[in-house]
Amino acid sequence: MTEPLHPVTGLDDVVHQRVRLGILTIAHEARRVEFVYLRTQLGLTAGNLSQHLTVLETAGLVEVEKGYEGKRGRTWITLTAAGNTALAEEIARLKQLIARVERP
Amino acid sequence: MTEPLHPVTGLDDVVHQRVRLGILTIAHEARRVEFVYLRTQLGLTAGNLSQHLTVLETAGLVEVEKGYEGKRGRTWITLTAAGNTALAEEIARLKQLIARVERP
Repeated sequence: MTEPLHPVTGLDDVVHQRVRLGILTIAHEARRVEFVYLRTQLGLTAGNLSQHLTVLETAGLVEVEKGYEGKRGRTWITLTAAGNTALAEEIARLKQLIARVERP
Repeated sequence: MTEPLHPVTGLDDVVHQRVRLGILTIAHEARRVEFVYLRTQLGLTAGNLSQHLTVLETAGLVEVEKGYEGKRGRTWITLTAAGNTALAEEIARLKQLIARVERP
């Protein structure tokens, strides 16, 4: 097989997948985000969100921290430095792709 | 569940998926593209490319046409009007997402 040339070949499915791209984007906006907030913003079931968080946590892109707010259990999600870099790379590739689509 | 708010909730997985986004982008650049060219550009096996083309064809976003070039069998892929619209919507959503990530 000859060398792949297209910008999408450089996209990482861990980051590019729709829901995970949403999680990383929201986590990028705040220092840390709460599980229920993420779930609501992204319109997900708790189970579905948990699955995607596990993929991101396993890849080292987010940290997931369980704690309490008063007596209520809370789960907090924080973007790691690697997650920040991965999101920046995804955005750079998407810009290349957009430029290619919009090229006259 | 409250209404989802985030731009990624408007992305369509049929279009957003990495390989399919590549197929649509390349098909957008040419009047029609040949199967082997797509496979090489995207670094895919024939089976993997076929699966993604079936998803896009079923959704009405591409047309797949089998024919001959001399004695050689060829498969040509053409973007439909619906495919063109779907790609434009994806690009518009990605721009919203990028703007959100880059907001100071």
